[in-house]
Amino acid sequence: MVAVTQPEALNWSTANCTIERAVGVFGDRWSFLVLREVFSGVRRFDDMRVRTRIPRQVLSARLASLIDAGLLRREPYREPGQRTRNEYRLTQKGLDLYPVLVALLDWGNRYAVDADGPPITAIHRDCGGAVHAALACSAGHDLESVRDVAFRVGPGARPAEARTA
Amino acid sequence: MVAVTQPEALNWSTANCTIERAVGVFGDRWSFLVLREVFSGVRRFDDMRVRTRIPRQVLSARLASLIDAGLLRREPYREPGQRTRNEYRLTQKGLDLYPVLVALLDWGNRYAVDADGPPITAIHRDCGGAVHAALACSAGHDLESVRDVAFRVGPGARPAEARTA
Repeated sequence: MVAVTQPEALNWSTANCTIERAVGVFGDRWSFLVLREVFSGVRRFDDMRVRTRIPRQVLSARLASLIDAGLLRREPYREPGQRTRNEYRLTQKGLDLYPVLVALLDWGNRYAVDADGPPITAIHRDCGGAVHAALACSAGHDLESVRDVAFRVGPGARPAEARTA
Repeated sequence: MVAVTQPEALNWSTANCTIERAVGVFGDRWSFLVLREVFSGVRRFDDMRVRTRIPRQVLSARLASLIDAGLLRREPYREPGQRTRNEYRLTQKGLDLYPVLVALLDWGNRYAVDADGPPITAIHRDCGGAVHAALACSAGHDLESVRDVAFRVGPGARPAEARTA
């Protein structure tokens, strides 16, 4: 019941928010499942469809939109006696979503896991050690708690639009 | 056009996937915008509504579902001459989504930013240095590339269900 000062964020516009733009590209459940598949090495439409249970047309649309956004690319393949089909592979722009996927995995493996443990973990290929998405201070300081981190306005911050409602 | 071996992931079920469960809790655009708000210190319904442009009823439903999931909690406040209202604050379970939000921000600030730079950055409160969501090997190795990381089956992996389609 204490009075608080206005949050600083209210002075700034959300119109060019880069979190909002990022989630506009891939921030829906189906897209995350498609990304899980390609990051797991599953690259073919029918395999994805079975594993994600995404309806065929929805999966097709999601793949097209992730390709349009430059996160995936098509790579043709042909099984003996079959027509040429496409695999879906990550571009560099897509691979750079790895921290997002690992951060989701870390949280899920902590808060949404069954008693028998996580079905997937992220590892370092060379040593087999666990990999996590850790918040890191660019000045090299240890961050003891997520409370040591804050969002601040950056150079592209624009004044908030006048409030009409 | 090269033949590939079957991806290992096809041997394993997605039924207990913790990424899927995590995105089932908060993996939609509206929820991410609500989380952006609370991580930015914006805790009041009307402020969130103006900044996110989420329709009132949708925002109300999203807040309720994030509370049900244990990511947010209500905290009553009262402005002079007004009725008591609620602020929405992060629980520890919600705060532990910080790496997810920062990973989204990092990606957005790289790939979805305007020429004038990012409107939001994440910083270390103590020193003001930039904070990023970095993939970290638990054995202390530097990861030179996201290609050094792989998803592997964990202790809770279950055999894939028989394929019927």
